[in-house]
Amino acid sequence: MSATTTYTVTGMTCGHCVAAVTEELQTIAGVQDVAVDLESGAVKIASAEPVDDPAVRSAVEEAGYQLA
Amino acid sequence: MSATTTYTVTGMTCGHCVAAVTEELQTIAGVQDVAVDLESGAVKIASAEPVDDPAVRSAVEEAGYQLA
Repeated sequence: MSATTTYTVTGMTCGHCVAAVTEELQTIAGVQDVAVDLESGAVKIASAEPVDDPAVRSAVEEAGYQLA
Repeated sequence: MSATTTYTVTGMTCGHCVAAVTEELQTIAGVQDVAVDLESGAVKIASAEPVDDPAVRSAVEEAGYQLA
C-alpha cells in the first residue's frame, strides 16, 4: 500500500527553505518521498501508510515554517 | 591594522541565505568577522588587511547570490 498526502507550507522563500522542510519531513517514520514546490508551498509526501498529521505539523514547525 | 568593508548582496531571502553567504565569506583568508543584514543586503566584512574584491565576489557567487 502507498499513500500520497499533500500539504501547504507557508513561509518558504528559497531553496534552502525547501531543503530544510524536506529534510525534516524525511525523518518521519514511513515517509518514502517528499516533493516540495517552493512557489505554491505544496508539499507532497509519499508513504507506505498515510502519515500522521501531527508529525507532519511538528516537522514543518521544527524546520521553522507553518502548515497553512 | 584592521579594515571593515561593506558590500551589498542581492538575492538573499531568509536566514538560510544569510548563513550561506556568511559561511562562504568566512573562508576568505584574513576575514575576521562577517555581519549580514538580510533586509538591506548589507554585508560587513572585518579583516586584518582589506579584503580582495574578486575573492568576495567569488564567495558570494559560490553561495548562490550576487554583489550589487
